[in-house]
Amino acid sequence: MILDEESDPLVVPARQGRAVVLHRGQQVRITDICGRQVGDVFVYNAADLSEHHSASHTRTHTGRLFPEVGGCFVTNHRRPILTYLADTSPGVHDMLIAACDPERYAALGDPIHASCAENLLAAMAALGHPALPFIPQPINIFMRVRPAEDGSLSWLDAATAPGDSITFRAEMDCILVVSACPQDHVVINGDGPTPLALSVLASDN
Amino acid sequence: MILDEESDPLVVPARQGRAVVLHRGQQVRITDICGRQVGDVFVYNAADLSEHHSASHTRTHTGRLFPEVGGCFVTNHRRPILTYLADTSPGVHDMLIAACDPERYAALGDPIHASCAENLLAAMAALGHPALPFIPQPINIFMRVRPAEDGSLSWLDAATAPGDSITFRAEMDCILVVSACPQDHVVINGDGPTPLALSVLASDN
Repeated sequence: MILDEESDPLVVPARQGRAVVLHRGQQVRITDICGRQVGDVFVYNAADLSEHHSASHTRTHTGRLFPEVGGCFVTNHRRPILTYLADTSPGVHDMLIAACDPERYAALGDPIHASCAENLLAAMAALGHPALPFIPQPINIFMRVRPAEDGSLSWLDAATAPGDSITFRAEMDCILVVSACPQDHVVINGDGPTPLALSVLASDN
Repeated sequence: MILDEESDPLVVPARQGRAVVLHRGQQVRITDICGRQVGDVFVYNAADLSEHHSASHTRTHTGRLFPEVGGCFVTNHRRPILTYLADTSPGVHDMLIAACDPERYAALGDPIHASCAENLLAAMAALGHPALPFIPQPINIFMRVRPAEDGSLSWLDAATAPGDSITFRAEMDCILVVSACPQDHVVINGDGPTPLALSVLASDN
Protein backbone atom coordinates (compact mmCIF):
# COMPACT_ATOMS: atom_id res chain seq x y z
CA MET A 1 0.00 0.00 0.00
CA ILE A 2 1.17 3.55 -0.66
CA LEU A 3 0.31 5.84 2.24
CA ASP A 4 0.99 9.48 1.63
CA GLU A 5 1.81 12.09 4.23
CA GLU A 6 -1.77 13.37 4.31
CA SER A 7 -3.30 9.95 4.89
CA ASP A 8 -4.88 8.96 8.17
CA PRO A 9 -2.92 6.30 10.01
CA LEU A 10 -3.45 2.80 8.68
CA VAL A 11 -4.61 0.19 11.18
CA VAL A 12 -2.67 -3.06 11.15
CA PRO A 13 -5.34 -5.38 12.56
CA ALA A 14 -4.43 -7.73 15.39
CA ARG A 15 -2.70 -10.87 14.06
CA GLN A 16 -2.27 -9.37 10.54
CA GLY A 17 0.46 -7.62 8.56
CA ARG A 18 0.60 -4.62 6.21
CA ALA A 19 3.26 -3.23 3.84
CA VAL A 20 3.96 0.39 2.95
CA VAL A 21 6.19 1.81 0.23
CA LEU A 22 8.47 4.59 1.52
CA HIS A 23 10.57 7.07 -0.39
CA ARG A 24 14.02 7.94 0.89
CA GLY A 25 13.69 10.62 3.56
CA GLN A 26 10.09 9.80 4.51
CA GLN A 27 9.37 8.99 8.13
CA VAL A 28 7.14 6.19 9.32
CA ARG A 29 5.63 5.90 12.78
CA ILE A 30 4.29 2.68 14.29
CA THR A 31 1.95 3.15 17.24
CA ASP A 32 0.92 0.53 19.78
CA ILE A 33 -2.77 1.45 19.99
CA CYS A 34 -3.77 -0.58 23.05
CA GLY A 35 -0.34 -1.18 24.61
CA ARG A 36 1.72 -4.34 25.25
CA GLN A 37 1.73 -5.37 21.56
CA VAL A 38 4.81 -6.50 19.64
CA GLY A 39 5.33 -5.65 15.95
CA ASP A 40 7.64 -7.58 13.63
CA VAL A 41 9.20 -5.15 11.14
CA PHE A 42 10.83 -6.23 7.85
CA VAL A 43 12.38 -3.78 5.35
CA TYR A 44 13.36 -4.35 1.71
CA ASN A 45 15.13 -2.21 -0.87
CA ALA A 46 12.17 -1.30 -3.14
CA ALA A 47 14.36 -1.64 -6.24
CA ASP A 48 15.92 -5.02 -5.36
CA LEU A 49 14.22 -7.38 -2.90
CA SER A 50 17.41 -9.43 -2.51
CA GLU A 51 18.62 -6.49 -0.39
CA HIS A 52 16.85 -6.23 2.97
CA HIS A 53 17.42 -5.28 6.59
CA SER A 54 19.79 -7.75 8.25
CA ALA A 55 19.98 -7.99 12.04
CA SER A 56 23.44 -9.59 12.05
CA HIS A 57 24.87 -6.87 9.80
CA THR A 58 23.18 -4.16 11.90
CA ARG A 59 24.72 -5.57 15.11
CA THR A 60 28.14 -5.51 13.44
CA HIS A 61 27.53 -1.91 12.30
CA THR A 62 26.21 -0.52 15.58
CA GLY A 63 28.20 -2.71 17.99
CA ARG A 64 25.03 -3.22 20.04
CA LEU A 65 22.66 -6.09 20.85
CA PHE A 66 19.56 -3.92 20.56
CA PRO A 67 18.56 -0.72 18.70
CA GLU A 68 19.26 2.69 20.24
CA VAL A 69 17.63 6.02 19.27
CA GLY A 70 19.76 7.75 16.63
CA GLY A 71 21.18 4.45 15.41
CA CYS A 72 20.92 3.02 11.98
CA PHE A 73 19.71 -0.29 10.53
CA VAL A 74 21.71 -1.69 7.62
CA THR A 75 21.02 -4.25 4.91
CA ASN A 76 22.77 -7.49 4.00
CA HIS A 77 24.90 -5.24 1.74
CA ARG A 78 25.79 -3.07 4.76
CA ARG A 79 23.93 -0.01 3.45
CA PRO A 80 21.72 2.11 5.72
CA ILE A 81 18.02 1.39 5.14
CA LEU A 82 16.35 2.94 8.24
CA THR A 83 17.33 5.38 10.97
CA TYR A 84 15.76 5.00 14.42
CA LEU A 85 14.61 8.61 14.85
CA ALA A 86 12.35 8.78 17.91
CA ASP A 87 10.57 6.70 20.50
CA THR A 88 7.88 7.46 23.09
CA SER A 89 7.83 3.85 24.37
CA PRO A 90 10.17 2.48 27.05
CA GLY A 91 12.60 1.92 24.15
CA VAL A 92 12.93 -1.85 24.48
CA HIS A 93 13.00 -3.65 21.12
CA ASP A 94 14.32 -7.09 20.26
CA MET A 95 16.73 -8.00 17.48
CA LEU A 96 17.63 -11.57 18.49
CA ILE A 97 14.55 -13.70 17.83
CA ALA A 98 13.15 -15.17 14.61
CA ALA A 99 9.65 -14.30 13.37
CA CYS A 100 6.97 -16.73 14.54
CA ASP A 101 6.03 -19.13 11.76
CA PRO A 102 3.87 -22.22 11.16
CA GLU A 103 6.62 -24.50 12.54
CA ARG A 104 6.71 -22.49 15.79
CA TYR A 105 2.96 -22.90 16.36
CA ALA A 106 3.07 -26.58 15.35
CA ALA A 107 5.68 -27.12 18.09
CA LEU A 108 3.39 -25.25 20.50
CA GLY A 109 0.56 -27.68 19.65
CA ASP A 110 -1.49 -25.11 17.71
CA PRO A 111 -0.69 -25.66 14.02
CA ILE A 112 -3.57 -23.64 12.52
CA HIS A 113 -2.47 -20.20 13.68
CA ALA A 114 -1.56 -16.87 12.08
CA SER A 115 2.16 -16.01 12.14
CA CYS A 116 4.43 -13.06 11.43
CA ALA A 117 6.21 -15.06 8.70
CA GLU A 118 2.94 -15.68 6.86
CA ASN A 119 1.85 -12.07 7.44
CA LEU A 120 5.07 -10.91 5.76
CA LEU A 121 4.44 -13.17 2.76
CA ALA A 122 0.80 -12.04 2.45
CA ALA A 123 1.66 -8.34 2.75
CA MET A 124 4.38 -8.60 0.10
CA ALA A 125 2.12 -10.66 -2.17
CA ALA A 126 -0.51 -7.90 -1.92
CA LEU A 127 2.13 -5.51 -3.34
CA GLY A 128 2.82 -7.88 -6.22
CA HIS A 129 5.79 -9.76 -4.74
CA PRO A 130 4.51 -13.30 -4.25
CA ALA A 131 7.72 -15.32 -4.14
CA LEU A 132 10.15 -14.38 -1.38
CA PRO A 133 12.89 -16.98 -1.06
CA PHE A 134 13.18 -16.78 2.74
CA ILE A 135 12.09 -14.89 5.87
CA PRO A 136 14.69 -12.37 7.12
CA GLN A 137 15.13 -11.90 10.87
CA PRO A 138 12.77 -9.05 11.90
CA ILE A 139 13.20 -6.02 14.12
CA ASN A 140 10.77 -6.95 16.90
CA ILE A 141 9.55 -3.56 18.06
CA PHE A 142 8.27 -3.31 21.64
CA MET A 143 9.37 -6.93 22.31
CA ARG A 144 11.19 -7.53 25.57
CA VAL A 145 13.80 -10.27 25.38
CA ARG A 146 16.47 -9.77 28.01
CA PRO A 147 19.80 -11.57 28.23
CA ALA A 148 21.08 -12.44 31.72
CA GLU A 149 24.77 -12.34 32.55
CA ASP A 150 25.05 -16.10 31.86
CA GLY A 151 23.67 -15.58 28.31
CA SER A 152 20.23 -17.03 28.99
CA LEU A 153 17.28 -15.14 27.47
CA SER A 154 13.99 -14.23 29.15
CA TRP A 155 10.80 -13.47 27.22
CA LEU A 156 8.84 -10.73 29.02
CA ASP A 157 5.54 -9.03 28.20
CA ALA A 158 5.79 -5.78 26.24
CA ALA A 159 6.08 -2.71 28.49
CA THR A 160 4.35 -0.27 26.12
CA ALA A 161 1.43 1.92 27.18
CA PRO A 162 -1.48 2.70 24.81
CA GLY A 163 -0.32 5.25 22.23
CA ASP A 164 3.41 4.60 22.57
CA SER A 165 5.18 4.81 19.23
CA ILE A 166 8.49 4.39 17.42
CA THR A 167 9.54 6.48 14.41
CA PHE A 168 11.96 5.55 11.63
CA ARG A 169 13.32 7.47 8.62
CA ALA A 170 13.79 5.62 5.32
CA GLU A 171 17.39 5.90 4.09
CA MET A 172 16.55 4.44 0.65
CA ASP A 173 13.33 3.82 -1.26
CA CYS A 174 12.03 0.78 0.58
CA ILE A 175 9.11 -1.46 1.43
CA LEU A 176 8.40 -1.72 5.14
CA VAL A 177 6.21 -4.53 6.46
CA VAL A 178 4.72 -4.57 9.96
CA SER A 179 3.07 -7.63 11.45
CA ALA A 180 0.98 -7.16 14.61
CA CYS A 181 2.39 -10.32 16.19
CA PRO A 182 -0.26 -13.06 16.64
CA GLN A 183 1.69 -14.84 19.41
CA ASP A 184 -0.69 -15.82 22.22
CA HIS A 185 1.12 -18.87 23.62
CA VAL A 186 3.86 -16.90 25.37
CA VAL A 187 3.64 -13.65 27.34
CA ILE A 188 5.17 -11.22 24.85
CA ASN A 189 1.85 -9.60 23.85
CA GLY A 190 0.46 -9.18 27.37
CA ASP A 191 -3.17 -10.31 27.52
CA GLY A 192 -3.31 -11.11 23.81
CA PRO A 193 -2.81 -9.71 20.30
CA THR A 194 -4.10 -6.20 19.55
CA PRO A 195 -3.71 -3.86 16.53
CA LEU A 196 -0.96 -1.42 15.65
CA ALA A 197 -1.19 1.79 13.60
CA LEU A 198 1.10 2.93 10.80
CA SER A 199 1.56 6.55 9.64
CA VAL A 200 3.81 8.17 7.04
CA LEU A 201 4.82 11.50 8.53
CA ALA A 202 6.96 13.69 6.40
CA SER A 203 9.78 13.79 3.95
CA ASP A 204 12.83 15.58 5.27
CA ASN A 205 14.70 15.88 1.99
CA MET B 1 34.38 -32.86 -0.49
CA ILE B 2 33.41 -36.17 1.08
CA LEU B 3 35.71 -37.04 3.99
CA ASP B 4 35.23 -40.50 5.38
CA GLU B 5 35.93 -41.55 8.93
CA GLU B 6 39.30 -43.06 8.01
CA SER B 7 40.53 -39.92 6.27
CA ASP B 8 43.28 -37.78 7.71
CA PRO B 9 42.06 -34.38 8.83
CA LEU B 10 41.57 -31.90 6.03
CA VAL B 11 43.43 -28.62 6.34
CA VAL B 12 41.33 -25.50 5.75
CA PRO B 13 44.08 -23.10 4.65
CA ALA B 14 44.28 -19.67 6.26
CA ARG B 15 41.80 -17.27 4.59
CA GLN B 16 40.01 -20.09 2.71
CA GLY B 17 36.89 -22.24 3.11
CA ARG B 18 36.06 -25.93 2.65
CA ALA B 19 32.79 -27.90 2.58
CA VAL B 20 32.19 -31.46 3.77
CA VAL B 21 29.15 -33.66 3.26
CA LEU B 22 28.00 -35.34 6.49
CA HIS B 23 25.54 -38.15 7.00
CA ARG B 24 23.14 -37.98 9.90
CA GLY B 25 24.90 -39.25 13.02
CA GLN B 26 28.43 -38.47 11.81
CA GLN B 27 30.59 -36.29 13.98
CA VAL B 28 32.79 -33.50 12.70
CA ARG B 29 35.64 -31.89 14.61
CA ILE B 30 37.15 -28.50 13.80
CA THR B 31 40.59 -27.88 15.28
CA ASP B 32 42.35 -24.56 15.67
CA ILE B 33 45.83 -25.68 14.59
CA CYS B 34 47.87 -22.64 15.67
CA GLY B 35 45.43 -21.04 18.15
CA ARG B 36 43.52 -17.73 18.17
CA GLN B 37 41.78 -18.40 14.84
CA VAL B 38 38.06 -17.90 14.20
CA GLY B 39 36.06 -20.22 11.91
CA ASP B 40 32.77 -19.27 10.26
CA VAL B 41 30.53 -22.35 10.07
CA PHE B 42 27.51 -22.65 7.74
CA VAL B 43 25.30 -25.76 7.55
CA TYR B 44 22.75 -26.74 4.88
CA ASN B 45 20.27 -29.61 4.58
CA ALA B 46 22.00 -31.72 1.89
CA ALA B 47 18.63 -32.52 0.28
CA ASP B 48 17.28 -28.96 0.20
CA LEU B 49 19.61 -25.97 0.32
CA SER B 50 16.73 -23.63 1.15
CA GLU B 51 16.90 -25.18 4.63
CA HIS B 52 20.00 -24.14 6.58
CA HIS B 53 21.20 -23.34 10.08
CA SER B 54 19.55 -20.14 11.35
CA ALA B 55 21.03 -18.26 14.30
CA SER B 56 17.78 -16.45 15.13
CA HIS B 57 15.80 -19.71 15.20
CA THR B 58 18.53 -21.39 17.27
CA ARG B 59 18.44 -18.57 19.86
CA THR B 60 14.65 -18.98 20.08
CA HIS B 61 15.09 -22.76 20.50
CA THR B 62 17.87 -22.72 23.09
CA GLY B 63 16.91 -19.49 24.89
CA ARG B 64 20.58 -18.49 24.87
CA LEU B 65 22.73 -15.83 23.21
CA PHE B 66 25.61 -18.22 22.57
CA PRO B 67 26.02 -21.99 22.07
CA GLU B 68 26.46 -24.29 25.08
CA VAL B 69 27.84 -27.86 25.05
CA GLY B 70 24.96 -30.33 24.68
CA GLY B 71 22.82 -27.76 22.91
CA CYS B 72 21.37 -28.02 19.47
CA PHE B 73 21.44 -25.83 16.37
CA VAL B 74 18.22 -25.65 14.34
CA THR B 75 17.35 -24.61 10.82
CA ASN B 76 15.04 -21.91 9.45
CA HIS B 77 12.40 -24.69 9.61
CA ARG B 78 13.18 -25.21 13.33
CA ARG B 79 14.59 -28.73 12.80
CA PRO B 80 17.79 -29.85 14.54
CA ILE B 81 20.75 -29.86 12.14
CA LEU B 82 23.76 -30.07 14.51
CA THR B 83 24.36 -30.95 18.14
CA TYR B 84 27.25 -29.29 19.99
CA LEU B 85 28.87 -32.42 21.40
CA ALA B 86 32.24 -31.51 22.85
CA ASP B 87 34.75 -28.70 23.18
CA THR B 88 38.37 -28.54 24.36
CA SER B 89 38.58 -24.76 23.77
CA PRO B 90 37.54 -22.11 26.31
CA GLY B 91 34.03 -22.61 24.86
CA VAL B 92 33.47 -19.06 23.61
CA HIS B 93 31.72 -18.92 20.24
CA ASP B 94 29.79 -16.08 18.63
CA MET B 95 26.34 -16.23 17.11
CA LEU B 96 25.58 -12.49 16.73
CA ILE B 97 27.81 -11.21 13.94
CA ALA B 98 27.48 -11.47 10.15
CA ALA B 99 30.13 -13.16 8.01
CA CYS B 100 32.76 -10.78 6.69
CA ASP B 101 32.12 -9.95 3.04
CA PRO B 102 33.44 -7.68 0.27
CA GLU B 103 31.34 -4.75 1.56
CA ARG B 104 32.93 -5.13 5.03
CA TYR B 105 36.46 -4.91 3.63
CA ALA B 106 35.53 -2.06 1.29
CA ALA B 107 34.35 -0.10 4.34
CA LEU B 108 37.66 -0.95 6.05
CA GLY B 109 39.53 0.54 3.06
CA ASP B 110 40.79 -2.82 1.75
CA PRO B 111 38.38 -3.84 -1.02
CA ILE B 112 40.49 -6.63 -2.58
CA HIS B 113 40.42 -9.07 0.34
CA ALA B 114 39.26 -12.65 0.92
CA SER B 115 36.06 -12.98 2.99
CA CYS B 116 34.04 -15.68 4.73
CA ALA B 117 31.04 -14.90 2.52
CA GLU B 118 33.08 -15.50 -0.65
CA ASN B 119 34.70 -18.58 0.91
CA LEU B 120 31.22 -20.02 1.52
CA LEU B 121 30.20 -19.38 -2.10
CA ALA B 122 33.43 -20.91 -3.46
CA ALA B 123 33.20 -24.00 -1.23
CA MET B 124 29.57 -24.63 -2.21
CA ALA B 125 30.36 -24.02 -5.89
CA ALA B 126 33.11 -26.66 -5.63
CA LEU B 127 30.39 -29.13 -4.53
CA GLY B 128 28.24 -28.20 -7.54
CA HIS B 129 26.07 -25.54 -5.89
CA PRO B 130 27.05 -22.31 -7.63
CA ALA B 131 24.00 -20.10 -6.98
CA LEU B 132 23.16 -19.50 -3.33
CA PRO B 133 20.58 -16.72 -3.02
CA PHE B 134 22.04 -15.21 0.17
CA ILE B 135 24.58 -15.65 2.97
CA PRO B 136 23.08 -17.07 6.20
CA GLN B 137 24.40 -15.81 9.53
CA PRO B 138 27.26 -18.15 10.53
CA ILE B 139 28.20 -19.84 13.79
CA ASN B 140 31.49 -18.05 14.48
CA ILE B 141 33.47 -20.71 16.35
CA PHE B 142 36.22 -19.50 18.70
CA MET B 143 35.14 -15.86 18.10
CA ARG B 144 34.89 -13.71 21.21
CA VAL B 145 32.18 -11.07 21.02
CA ARG B 146 31.00 -10.10 24.47
CA PRO B 147 27.95 -8.02 25.35
CA ALA B 148 28.24 -5.59 28.25
CA GLU B 149 25.34 -4.91 30.58
CA ASP B 150 24.39 -1.83 28.51
CA GLY B 151 24.10 -4.00 25.35
CA SER B 152 27.32 -2.77 23.74
CA LEU B 153 29.47 -5.42 22.07
CA SER B 154 33.24 -5.87 22.33
CA TRP B 155 35.30 -7.73 19.74
CA LEU B 156 38.17 -9.60 21.48
CA ASP B 157 40.92 -11.84 20.14
CA ALA B 158 40.17 -15.57 20.12
CA ALA B 159 41.24 -17.29 23.35
CA THR B 160 42.00 -20.69 21.79
CA ALA B 161 45.33 -22.50 22.29
CA PRO B 162 46.94 -24.54 19.49
CA GLY B 163 45.06 -27.82 19.11
CA ASP B 164 41.81 -26.69 20.74
CA SER B 165 38.78 -28.14 18.99
CA ILE B 166 34.98 -28.19 18.85
CA THR B 167 32.94 -31.27 17.87
CA PHE B 168 29.45 -31.39 16.35
CA ARG B 169 27.14 -34.27 15.43
CA ALA B 170 25.05 -34.02 12.25
CA GLU B 171 21.33 -34.40 13.01
CA MET B 172 20.40 -34.70 9.31
CA ASP B 173 22.35 -35.33 6.11
CA CYS B 174 23.98 -31.97 5.65
CA ILE B 175 26.73 -29.91 4.04
CA LEU B 176 28.97 -28.13 6.53
CA VAL B 177 31.20 -25.27 5.36
CA VAL B 178 34.06 -23.88 7.43
CA SER B 179 35.86 -20.67 6.52
CA ALA B 180 39.16 -19.93 8.28
CA CYS B 181 38.27 -16.27 8.75
CA PRO B 182 40.52 -13.90 6.74
CA GLN B 183 39.82 -10.90 8.99
CA ASP B 184 43.07 -9.06 9.71
CA HIS B 185 41.74 -5.53 10.28
CA VAL B 186 40.29 -6.23 13.72
CA VAL B 187 41.72 -8.29 16.57
CA ILE B 188 39.52 -11.39 16.38
CA ASN B 189 42.21 -13.63 14.84
CA GLY B 190 45.06 -12.62 17.15
CA ASP B 191 48.23 -11.95 15.18
CA GLY B 192 46.59 -12.84 11.87
CA PRO B 193 44.78 -15.58 9.94
CA THR B 194 45.98 -19.18 10.32
CA PRO B 195 44.56 -22.55 9.15
CA LEU B 196 41.97 -24.82 10.76
CA ALA B 197 41.62 -28.61 10.46
CA LEU B 198 38.47 -30.58 9.76
CA SER B 199 37.94 -34.28 10.64
CA VAL B 200 34.98 -36.61 10.31
CA LEU B 201 35.11 -38.82 13.37
CA ALA B 202 32.50 -41.48 13.64
CA SER B 203 28.91 -42.34 13.01
CA ASP B 204 26.98 -43.06 16.18
CA ASN B 205 23.90 -44.53 14.59
